[in-house]
Amino acid sequence: MWLNCDLGESFGNWQMGCDAEVMPFIDQANIACGFHASDPLTMQQTVRLALQHGVMLGAHPGYPDLVGFGRRSLACSHAELVALIRYQVGALQAIAAAEGGQVRYVKPHGALYNDMMAQPEVFRAVLEAVAGLPGELHLLAMAVPDHARFQQLADELGVPLWWEAFADRAYTPEGRLQPRNQAGAVYHDSSRILQQALDFASGQVKTTAGTWLSLPVQSLCVHGDNPESVAVVRGIRQVLKQGQSGAQG
Amino acid sequence: MWLNCDLGESFGNWQMGCDAEVMPFIDQANIACGFHASDPLTMQQTVRLALQHGVMLGAHPGYPDLVGFGRRSLACSHAELVALIRYQVGALQAIAAAEGGQVRYVKPHGALYNDMMAQPEVFRAVLEAVAGLPGELHLLAMAVPDHARFQQLADELGVPLWWEAFADRAYTPEGRLQPRNQAGAVYHDSSRILQQALDFASGQVKTTAGTWLSLPVQSLCVHGDNPESVAVVRGIRQVLKQGQSGAQG
Amino acid sequence: MWLNCDLGESFGNWQMGCDAEVMPFIDQANIACGFHASDPLTMQQTVRLALQHGVMLGAHPGYPDLVGFGRRSLACSHAELVALIRYQVGALQAIAAAEGGQVRYVKPHGALYNDMMAQPEVFRAVLEAVAGLPGELHLLAMAVPDHARFQQLADELGVPLWWEAFADRAYTPEGRLQPRNQAGAVYHDSSRILQQALDFASGQVKTTAGTWLSLPVQSLCVHGDNPESVAVVRGIRQVLKQGQSGAQG
Amino acid sequence: MWLNCDLGESFGNWQMGCDAEVMPFIDQANIACGFHASDPLTMQQTVRLALQHGVMLGAHPGYPDLVGFGRRSLACSHAELVALIRYQVGALQAIAAAEGGQVRYVKPHGALYNDMMAQPEVFRAVLEAVAGLPGELHLLAMAVPDHARFQQLADELGVPLWWEAFADRAYTPEGRLQPRNQAGAVYHDSSRILQQALDFASGQVKTTAGTWLSLPVQSLCVHGDNPESVAVVRGIRQVLKQGQSGAQG
Repeated sequence: MWLNCDLGESFGNWQMGCDAEVMPFIDQANIACGFHASDPLTMQQTVRLALQHGVMLGAHPGYPDLVGFGRRSLACSHAELVALIRYQVGALQAIAAAEGGQVRYVKPHGALYNDMMAQPEVFRAVLEAVAGLPGELHLLAMAVPDHARFQQLADELGVPLWWEAFADRAYTPEGRLQPRNQAGAVYHDSSRILQQALDFASGQVKTTAGTWLSLPVQSLCVHGDNPESVAVVRGIRQVLKQGQSGAQG
Repeated sequence: MWLNCDLGESFGNWQMGCDAEVMPFIDQANIACGFHASDPLTMQQTVRLALQHGVMLGAHPGYPDLVGFGRRSLACSHAELVALIRYQVGALQAIAAAEGGQVRYVKPHGALYNDMMAQPEVFRAVLEAVAGLPGELHLLAMAVPDHARFQQLADELGVPLWWEAFADRAYTPEGRLQPRNQAGAVYHDSSRILQQALDFASGQVKTTAGTWLSLPVQSLCVHGDNPESVAVVRGIRQVLKQGQSGAQG
Repeated sequence: MWLNCDLGESFGNWQMGCDAEVMPFIDQANIACGFHASDPLTMQQTVRLALQHGVMLGAHPGYPDLVGFGRRSLACSHAELVALIRYQVGALQAIAAAEGGQVRYVKPHGALYNDMMAQPEVFRAVLEAVAGLPGELHLLAMAVPDHARFQQLADELGVPLWWEAFADRAYTPEGRLQPRNQAGAVYHDSSRILQQALDFASGQVKTTAGTWLSLPVQSLCVHGDNPESVAVVRGIRQVLKQGQSGAQG
Repeated sequence: MWLNCDLGESFGNWQMGCDAEVMPFIDQANIACGFHASDPLTMQQTVRLALQHGVMLGAHPGYPDLVGFGRRSLACSHAELVALIRYQVGALQAIAAAEGGQVRYVKPHGALYNDMMAQPEVFRAVLEAVAGLPGELHLLAMAVPDHARFQQLADELGVPLWWEAFADRAYTPEGRLQPRNQAGAVYHDSSRILQQALDFASGQVKTTAGTWLSLPVQSLCVHGDNPESVAVVRGIRQVLKQGQSGAQG
């Protein structure tokens, strides 16, 4: 089980996130590409930091909305979506190449990620964007019960998928994230988060209804926003390693 | 002798330039990359148009200044310059690759181009940016009498150069362009422009002092802003072909 | 009956619209404020042009989306909407004051206008924004059969309204504009446009079902995009004047 | 002696500065206007905070360069400068008015401030911008030995000036700030900063050569970037009050 984390979200003079602190504990860095956060120099520095720690490079493209941090849905056309994703990923690919690295996957950010999971035509636009890019890129999407539907479209367009899950979010019986504006949507108790991480490692999650869901998951999305969340990441890293060694032993 | 032209300078809803009209007559398209002009979708359409006409793709990065169209010098640091050039070129490379094309060269735009020719540290930053990028990119710079100085630095950093000249601009005895705010800086008489194009084809240019300068030139910079300038490009194309066939005959 | 027109939509080096040609024939200039189009210098020049022709100044704020020309809906919060409208209107007020003019009204642009007419909470945010501004500003909104509902909210917040209509757009029996992606949504035949202008002048419009609707209208929205649309504006101006003198005689 | 402080420099999701902590100790808030930092909603919140503490509102316009935080000089024309300053100040005036406040002065930011003090034509553009705005605005500029030269131009254009000084910066014998890249340019020892504040309160400053300069100063520029600088501000506030009461007793 990999850990992926949104990183490189500073912008010019504005710092954000504990990138240096969390990088040693993760496997995949979702690097912002300048449309919702970051800038060329921040991207370069983030790539360097990731490469120093042997962390896989991922492009994290978003809607063109710095003020809204890419969290406000923007009604783009299909052609606009395809082009703006390629633009952002390509910018990161060039910066990564100059540092001796290679972008391995794409994970859309914020509202673009949500729209991709909710609207088939947005998912298709993302796939088309990624399919056209050089470098054998994977798309990192959210593991859902109806993943076969996503997988089929991705297969048609020839884009390999990786599935991610969230250890700190409550899952509905339908396998969707409990909306953030509802009570209990985000777990703050670290023991509960670690337990859900372990559950995902064994291929399942307990829903808000108390039922269990099987979900295919290659990667857990973790957060490096502040020292507390970095401590949680370190904890997840540890329990997964123990679980693994236990499973192996 | 190639003809290169700044293209793809529309931005969102705002149209600029007669790209479709001038494309059949040029060899190299300097494609804006979204910082001083253009946007991801415009870049894609420009790449397609160039590929339809078998025109070589070039990246045309500029300062981040849409309102000023990249014509206002911006005091960037060395590291900022390197990163912002790679970002823009990479974005175009990805969009080009998705259309089956390949970016072959880089030509900085506007104030960045002028600063590159006037300030050795900016030239070095551009070279570093290009040297780090994949794809065996050339840098297209202005042919000047002291070109050996530029060539030496480019050789050190391993960046191959192409030299360009301007058929419609008056050259000082020092081999620089007459500043635009001086009378006679820009030629509007097409016969004069065609003559200077032919002169460059034979490796020289007549200066404002009436003297002749030898300049190495692989490409002439032409303009597709309006129907008149497109007509001039067609004229240059013709006289160069005739001159060539005459020389060959 | 006034004629209002979207103007000042150039951006930096990119020109748009026949502002100088259409200004003599209109009464109200909806001036872009830099978020979806225009820039401070373009705003200044547009204000000057309007004042030269004695045209009333209106602010035309939009979503922050230059690439999309403010035509893509952006999911802003209530507080964001209020602040971004005040920001844009205030910027124009200052530029107008420096030229000896005064902004008299606000008309939202593009997707913001559509969202305002379709979503009561957006309409309320616009009203709140305008209510807080100095200068006794009117809000220019679309005349609809259920205008009483809009009027009531505007009265509550103390914002006076002006109603506008579109002479070149087909109206559904419900009094909404036929969506642009449907056949016949936009009239191109100038005699039909002039007739609808006259109809609005007498307080009614013929719908796509052949029925008549009564609509309160103080202003017709016209277009200065190109010479053809300017000719239509001149025509509307003329028939309205004749209709008026006929009515008076 | 007033204390003025750059504030409201957050941008969207990115937080910057200890605005709430420093506000109780200052007299004048230099509020960023969205071009180098801030956004409409942040401006509104900053205005509210200032008004809660009875702090005078100032507009802090900058070059249009978010990535560079307005610290990179941008070669703008005279007309561009005038318009972009009015735009930013006007935006803040509207937001302030809606909160029941009034902008009382303008202080350019970063590279624009430096260019204003170094280039007479930029100073003139700033004056023209301010002179055209409604509301009897002062311009806050840096107290320099040759202040008469600045005063004269300001008088011509009818713009009242306030002079500011820096308690934490070394002054050259010519009365300019020691450049930041030179050793000892910025004072970190708080007792030294408090002493220089007291010196300015009595109308003079000790230069790096050990000589004394007389400078007219109405306001000291202080910093709210972090808890340490806020502590210094509190200290300055205290010594000035004591100095005042001592002088009064």
